[in-house]
Amino acid sequence: MTGTAGEPRWLDDGEMRAWRAYVIASELLRKQLGRELQERHGMALADYEVLVRLSDHDGGRMRMAHLAGEVASSKSRLSHQIARMETAGLVQRVECGDDARGVFAEITEAGRDRLRETAPTHVAGVRAHLIDLLKPTDQTALAEIFERVLDHLGHPER
Amino acid sequence: MTGTAGEPRWLDDGEMRAWRAYVIASELLRKQLGRELQERHGMALADYEVLVRLSDHDGGRMRMAHLAGEVASSKSRLSHQIARMETAGLVQRVECGDDARGVFAEITEAGRDRLRETAPTHVAGVRAHLIDLLKPTDQTALAEIFERVLDHLGHPER
Repeated sequence: MTGTAGEPRWLDDGEMRAWRAYVIASELLRKQLGRELQERHGMALADYEVLVRLSDHDGGRMRMAHLAGEVASSKSRLSHQIARMETAGLVQRVECGDDARGVFAEITEAGRDRLRETAPTHVAGVRAHLIDLLKPTDQTALAEIFERVLDHLGHPER
Repeated sequence: MTGTAGEPRWLDDGEMRAWRAYVIASELLRKQLGRELQERHGMALADYEVLVRLSDHDGGRMRMAHLAGEVASSKSRLSHQIARMETAGLVQRVECGDDARGVFAEITEAGRDRLRETAPTHVAGVRAHLIDLLKPTDQTALAEIFERVLDHLGHPER
């Protein structure tokens, strides 16, 4: 619980500096990566991220609810997004008759081709705008900080 | 330029660990902060962020184009968002006759009240899910890493 009773503990200057840099830079980074994918491949970053998550899982499939937990969309927005991506032939929805926990999204062969085509642009952007800016100690710090956030927020895969 | 000719330099294990932790934790963090604002105050995180940015600027106003550079929305989405927030009385659009560079968004008194009301929830979430998880050295590392990203991406305020 993060109570709101009483005077809140506002961020001090150092904390505010860290938070502001992180939150603004993260937005700019996301926009930049999105712009590069859009301009070079006509692909939305949100669609790319869905393809990456699916391709990382066994059989190229994930439960919709699980996938929604990992990407930026809300469940209802993800459901529209997956419908759109299904029309484009990049994914398909699969219902497992013996599994009451519902519908899976599965990457298609065309989806895997599209991912192979676009991945070099994305990785070049991730390097240029983040990873290659980091000293080796920064890289470790970045991993440790956000692994702690994942643990804290109860990420299902950790 | 982030060229895509030739074999891309894929991320090695350490780089991938840092990138994956960061990108997934950032999404989860954003969703969690959004959920808390929505549940307790019926406010969208994107609206909160617009109010914060405006209130941080002289006169509580920013050029729409400048504001669009700092928040998650695209320019067209921001324009819809500001129209919605204007209807709710939280901001107003101001045209400056002598300034060819266009329209400003300005926070209203009701917007400032709403920000004061919701800020304790947001700061409690930022502490609980990020800042209070950090050691002092992490805090400095986080600031330095993302200030480097801001410099690199040509953030207008740095």
